[in-house]
Amino acid sequence: MFELDPRLRQDCFALGKLPLCQLLLMNNAALPWFILVAETDVIEVCDLSPGDQAALLAEINEVSNLVREFDGVEKLNVGAIGNIVSQLHVHVVGRHPGDYCWPGVVWGSKVPRRYQAQEVDDIRTLAVSSLGQRFTPADS
Amino acid sequence: MFELDPRLRQDCFALGKLPLCQLLLMNNAALPWFILVAETDVIEVCDLSPGDQAALLAEINEVSNLVREFDGVEKLNVGAIGNIVSQLHVHVVGRHPGDYCWPGVVWGSKVPRRYQAQEVDDIRTLAVSSLGQRFTPADS
Repeated sequence: MFELDPRLRQDCFALGKLPLCQLLLMNNAALPWFILVAETDVIEVCDLSPGDQAALLAEINEVSNLVREFDGVEKLNVGAIGNIVSQLHVHVVGRHPGDYCWPGVVWGSKVPRRYQAQEVDDIRTLAVSSLGQRFTPADS
Repeated sequence: MFELDPRLRQDCFALGKLPLCQLLLMNNAALPWFILVAETDVIEVCDLSPGDQAALLAEINEVSNLVREFDGVEKLNVGAIGNIVSQLHVHVVGRHPGDYCWPGVVWGSKVPRRYQAQEVDDIRTLAVSSLGQRFTPADS
C-alpha cells in the first residue's frame, strides 16, 4: 500500500490522482509549483519500468500544460531531485523573469506567501479542467 | 545548423554525441555532473515530438547509469531548468550525503574545484565504455 511521504504531505496540498502519480500542489502561492509523486517504491526515474517511465513522461507533459495556464509563465522548471525526500517525485514549476527567485532555482528559497483555501480549490478546479478524465480529484 | 549556447560551451567540456543530444561535462570536479543538450531549437521537454521525448528519456537513462559508475553516488538529481540558458538541456548529477552542497541542489553553489585535463580525458574514456556504440566521443 503506497503511502505519501510525511514531508510532502506537510508541504503540499493533495490535488488528486493521475494514472501513475499523485498530483500535489506545493504550498507556495508565489508560483505555480506542482509535484508528481509516482505510486511506487522505486527511487530513481531510470529504475522505473519502461511503461512507468512512459506514463511519468505523459503526466509531466500534462502538468506542464496545466502550469502554462497560469498567467505569466514563460519557462518551465522540471526536476527529480529527492535529496531530502527520496520518494520518487518530480517538480513541475512555472517561472518568469522577475519572479521572487529568478533566475535561481526554487529549491532552497524561502516561500514568500502560502495559499488561502479558496485559491487551492480554484487550482483544483483548473486541474480538473486541464487534465480531463485521466485525473481524479481528491476531496478538498 | 545547431550551435551550442556559448554559456554552456564556457562552463563545460564537450564529451561527445548521443543520437539526440550532445553530452557535456560540467567543469566541477567535486561531483559527476553531466548535461545532455538536445540538438533542437525546442525549449521545453513537453514541446519535443514524442520520438524526441523518448530519445531524450533513453539518453537520460544511459547517462544516469554512467553517473552511477562514479564512486560514492547514492542519489541522482535530474533537472531541466533553463532559466539562464534556455537552450534545452538536462542536468544529470550524482550526489551523496556529505557532498559540498548536500542536501541542497547544485545550481547556484560555487564550484569548489575545476577539472584537470587528465581527469576529463579519463571521464571521456569512461563515457565511451559506459555508453557504448550509441556514443560518438568528441576530439579531446
